[in-house]
Amino acid sequence: MIPGPIDPPARLLMGPGPISAYPSVLSAMSAPLVGQYDPFMTSAMAETQELYRGVWSTTNDATLLVDGTSRAGIEAAMVSLVRPGDRVLVPVFGRFGHLLAEIAERALAEVHTIETAWGQVFPASVIEEAIIRVQPTLLALVQGDTSTTMSQPLDEIGAICARHGVLFYSDATASLGGNDFEADAWGLDAASAGLQKCLGGPSGSAPITLSERAVEVVTARKKIEAGIREPGDPSAPDFVRSNYFDLGMILDYWGPRRLNHHTEATSMLYAARECARVLLLEGRGEVIARHELAGRAMLEGVRALGLVVFGDVAHKMNNVVAVEIPEGVPGDVARAAMLEDFGIEIGTSFGPLHGRVWRIGTMGYNARKDAVLTTLVALEAVLRRYGASVPVGGGVEAAADVYRAAA
Amino acid sequence: MIPGPIDPPARLLMGPGPISAYPSVLSAMSAPLVGQYDPFMTSAMAETQELYRGVWSTTNDATLLVDGTSRAGIEAAMVSLVRPGDRVLVPVFGRFGHLLAEIAERALAEVHTIETAWGQVFPASVIEEAIIRVQPTLLALVQGDTSTTMSQPLDEIGAICARHGVLFYSDATASLGGNDFEADAWGLDAASAGLQKCLGGPSGSAPITLSERAVEVVTARKKIEAGIREPGDPSAPDFVRSNYFDLGMILDYWGPRRLNHHTEATSMLYAARECARVLLLEGRGEVIARHELAGRAMLEGVRALGLVVFGDVAHKMNNVVAVEIPEGVPGDVARAAMLEDFGIEIGTSFGPLHGRVWRIGTMGYNARKDAVLTTLVALEAVLRRYGASVPVGGGVEAAADVYRAAA
Repeated sequence: MIPGPIDPPARLLMGPGPISAYPSVLSAMSAPLVGQYDPFMTSAMAETQELYRGVWSTTNDATLLVDGTSRAGIEAAMVSLVRPGDRVLVPVFGRFGHLLAEIAERALAEVHTIETAWGQVFPASVIEEAIIRVQPTLLALVQGDTSTTMSQPLDEIGAICARHGVLFYSDATASLGGNDFEADAWGLDAASAGLQKCLGGPSGSAPITLSERAVEVVTARKKIEAGIREPGDPSAPDFVRSNYFDLGMILDYWGPRRLNHHTEATSMLYAARECARVLLLEGRGEVIARHELAGRAMLEGVRALGLVVFGDVAHKMNNVVAVEIPEGVPGDVARAAMLEDFGIEIGTSFGPLHGRVWRIGTMGYNARKDAVLTTLVALEAVLRRYGASVPVGGGVEAAADVYRAAA
Repeated sequence: MIPGPIDPPARLLMGPGPISAYPSVLSAMSAPLVGQYDPFMTSAMAETQELYRGVWSTTNDATLLVDGTSRAGIEAAMVSLVRPGDRVLVPVFGRFGHLLAEIAERALAEVHTIETAWGQVFPASVIEEAIIRVQPTLLALVQGDTSTTMSQPLDEIGAICARHGVLFYSDATASLGGNDFEADAWGLDAASAGLQKCLGGPSGSAPITLSERAVEVVTARKKIEAGIREPGDPSAPDFVRSNYFDLGMILDYWGPRRLNHHTEATSMLYAARECARVLLLEGRGEVIARHELAGRAMLEGVRALGLVVFGDVAHKMNNVVAVEIPEGVPGDVARAAMLEDFGIEIGTSFGPLHGRVWRIGTMGYNARKDAVLTTLVALEAVLRRYGASVPVGGGVEAAADVYRAAA
């Protein structure tokens, strides 16, 4: 039995990601393929690099894509920047901090973590104290952790890292495009993301940017494949323990030498290019403001439905909110009703929050008034169906008020 | 300056890959996204697994996609199956043999290679002798190496590996779908590929299949992330030195437990599903026969143009032919003329063949009569323009004869 062509149901994806892609991003992926060294391809790659400099707010030459999901970008940064035995400090404030620690462990780093309660972030001073104590090679810090919805302030961290000679990496997967991110102004040495959150594309391509200092580290560890090595090419003994994620080689492929590494994932490149293009056409500040507004409307909406918001709201990302599942409401059943009756997906949770909160996202294409209001009316109906006492129309009107006040 | 929407030029991709995708594969990628645990998504994943069992000719339960380009599939197999210090034997008959050796070195294997001249393959007896001498944990063998166009016969190798207790992995990136591949009948423990060759899709997704024996090896090394680990979950000390490529974790994500790992690259999944779907709808044998016919027509065509074919033609893959660039013809200039004047891409070469041969592919969607004949008439015109003495109409009629005889 061979199934028919792919024919997904209509879905409004209002979870913590992936979210519904911008229509033009979906269209971009059906553009015809070209060869990997076609002048059109190399110029599309160069355009994409320049577009992402705008997205990351950087002048870093080394701004490119890793061909894989967002954790491919994290692993590429980690294995290329960290040598086995290097100390890596990871402040953990949710699941994705654990992931950074885990990936650093796989790279055989000596991993040190500090933790704070889920729903909180770290004061810069706590991170600095840990840096002084641990003396890491690299600080790896999630910007926005969807597991808790928290956004760790990064603006003071780069200066701290510079003061102590520490490389500063941030995973901006969940936050980039919907929250401020200033790679240069904040002193980032490396940052990576994915398309499937605020950038409004599919999972499968990981934008990454590296400072000159980071490029020096990765190029010092470069190894050129025997099959294409030429006399005089260096091959460091201290090579990166991955071919696929060796950023030195990937930079040679994206750079003027165009040295063959992988075959760039053409359709995902088209998608990534379009994600950045729609963001910059609308304006970086405007897109962040749109996320801030949608996020605030959703926050006021769920509060007006009587739901308790999880975590330190002052440090919540713009693009996701976690709400406690009301006593007596069967969380997974209600979530399934949202999906089956309204075609709206909201998110479940991981770890200590599993079964305790739902996560509702307002990201990328779906950081829109109609998406926010539709989600709230459906949620009100479902909460009522499962016995929660909810004020009639309260949620949607509170959210609409936010939009009215902003108009 | 923000560039316009992606708008690739018309290209007929007749190089060694990537090649022009099937139109329905391009369309599939613009289908709307769904959530990663949406029942539609998990059923699309299960369908894709079943479709690839048909493509690989296997009943392996562990048949899935790695989210990255074809070398992501290779690296996933290698780092998951090979422990640091394990002996890996790689028979090298072209660039991609070197790549397998390189990836095994990155995984800190003790790598042993045997080499044969470019343009040749190995007799099974030579591989068996090397196995006896080296006593490797894993034999890693490219099936079709586009760098030389050769296809290594695999049908006797699985039995040899079984006899000596060696795991048998093959990289079928360049060959799968256009040449016979019998994962079960040939005794493969692991095999991986990409979409951008005979499967007629974009680069960016790597189909992989693992035997039960291979699954035992990878699951013995499983590590579950701290962020989602539950009491009683195992965490092997001998863990895979990669999170992204830990096939044990990836199997848990694709398996009934659906344990979160990466966020599956939805649009690439749609593409991979459609690649397999069009192949199985046409019929696996029929698609291979179409490649054989197109390849034979191209072979007779280039010979009738007076071009010398590189390598041992008896072991040539169906889907690509290498021809020596005639004396006096400027290879790169002529290739550029094919692209600029006719929109047809043919391939250059690597390593010892660089500047010496062109590689012409007939793969996937482009394993078609009109694509073959159009390429030959354009090539005849370009060769003549650059001073080669070519028989008028000889190439195209020789190829057309092959099609006529088959009709």
